[in-house]
Amino acid sequence: MATILYQDQFLPRDRGRVDMEDRGYQFGDGIYEAIRVYGGRLFLLDLHMKRLERSAGELRLQLPYSIGHLTDNLQTLIEKNKIDDGLIYFQITRGAAPRKHLFPEGAESVLTGSAINLPRRSAPGEAGIKVSLIDDIRWLRCDIKTLNLLGNVLAKQEAHEQGSEEAILHRGNTVTEGSSCNVFIVKEGRLVTHPADHFILNGITRLFVLGLAKKLSIPVEERLFSTEELFSADEVFITSTGAEVTPVVRIDNQLIAGGRPGAVARRLIDAFNEEVARIRTAALS
Amino acid sequence: MATILYQDQFLPRDRGRVDMEDRGYQFGDGIYEAIRVYGGRLFLLDLHMKRLERSAGELRLQLPYSIGHLTDNLQTLIEKNKIDDGLIYFQITRGAAPRKHLFPEGAESVLTGSAINLPRRSAPGEAGIKVSLIDDIRWLRCDIKTLNLLGNVLAKQEAHEQGSEEAILHRGNTVTEGSSCNVFIVKEGRLVTHPADHFILNGITRLFVLGLAKKLSIPVEERLFSTEELFSADEVFITSTGAEVTPVVRIDNQLIAGGRPGAVARRLIDAFNEEVARIRTAALS
Repeated sequence: MATILYQDQFLPRDRGRVDMEDRGYQFGDGIYEAIRVYGGRLFLLDLHMKRLERSAGELRLQLPYSIGHLTDNLQTLIEKNKIDDGLIYFQITRGAAPRKHLFPEGAESVLTGSAINLPRRSAPGEAGIKVSLIDDIRWLRCDIKTLNLLGNVLAKQEAHEQGSEEAILHRGNTVTEGSSCNVFIVKEGRLVTHPADHFILNGITRLFVLGLAKKLSIPVEERLFSTEELFSADEVFITSTGAEVTPVVRIDNQLIAGGRPGAVARRLIDAFNEEVARIRTAALS
Repeated sequence: MATILYQDQFLPRDRGRVDMEDRGYQFGDGIYEAIRVYGGRLFLLDLHMKRLERSAGELRLQLPYSIGHLTDNLQTLIEKNKIDDGLIYFQITRGAAPRKHLFPEGAESVLTGSAINLPRRSAPGEAGIKVSLIDDIRWLRCDIKTLNLLGNVLAKQEAHEQGSEEAILHRGNTVTEGSSCNVFIVKEGRLVTHPADHFILNGITRLFVLGLAKKLSIPVEERLFSTEELFSADEVFITSTGAEVTPVVRIDNQLIAGGRPGAVARRLIDAFNEEVARIRTAALS
């Protein structure tokens, strides 16, 4: 049986239970991170932890452990579950209290975490995916990585039922992000992606890819772009912790870039792969 | 110790625990109702159950029991907890499944419920309350009574820190509703309240008060109204399952109707009280 993290304890999966009045269960009052694991190592850990602290700050939610201690526990969780390439998920809620909207006094934050194996490119990956364009109906603080995910869930489900791998969301005429990813377009050699404001989650893979683009001297514009720009882009790709850089080759019934992954996405994927290879080598040494 | 409802079982409160991968805990993927109890009886039960079925339908979430069976269990829960005037809360989530946004196959919905004593007018009530005007940043399906409540929580908390009992929310210039109530204004003898569209929850007490207004021949307009209309109203009051009809006498730093509850709210409160008295008499007979 898998081992999970409950607060500071490592427990068998079937003992991972929480109180029915945990605010995470009644209000979605909590935050989370999902961190990629390559070769048993936490990928881009510092960026994830920095975002975690920001999310906690925005909701004035107390982290139950120091980042150092939490990191040690996540690393132990990887080892106990013998994860090579995988994913660590953990969430922190405001804890259990009699149900009232107001922040409770004296509740203790509750941490739960788990680890799964997730081989690279288990998804359609580099060949490119089909996506659906879906209305973005979420709240106006999408920058906080909270457990209020119904808008994302419904968009992903709708896309799935249209035969798509992912939903690309738009608010009015503006493309925001995906249901669980960020969206990039390429136009005349330039990368364009929505700025990191309250309308999108500032993805860690988004940040990593922006860094790769800089290294590769690919010009980047963080600015609003329209659904028309999306459909007429030279390339479209998405980024996320699980999907890394995944080209989009079809949106609804329209082919993008002739239905084949583009050259810029290819360069970024190659650079991404080199980075992962470097981590593996370091893990082995 | 209090007795709670877990699925079909009555358990001591401390056994009310749910799986860490319940979708209610990880996505807020669930719905709820809070029903007033007067004299040990469920108030406006049918309207609550109709709304529950609607919420479930909108999220394509399977109710785990028939409405009749659920009602029997809620009634038993009232009796086991010896509730006279109180509140029944219950929620239904999509159940436990390995974490993925898409609706899981084969997950079983999870019901948890509890009952508390809640005397009438334990809140400031008829004397009127102060409220704060707060930006409505929630998603665009506020008509579904879901567990994605962070927008409501943050608004309530902000109002509280301003010394207010409740937040009245506005989207741009339009007043929508409160963080856990509906909002009515009175202008020249007419009741005005936001129509029951996707921007508000169609409160059961809202519906009940609209019915009382009809009986009392008070004209009603369900239409958008502005923050200017709110501040210049002859009366303002809120409605909710817990707060019933509660006059608003101050918004931010501005007195409403000279800081005293108005005559229309008074008539509605009297009619409400008569209805509750009728229920009590019936319960005793």
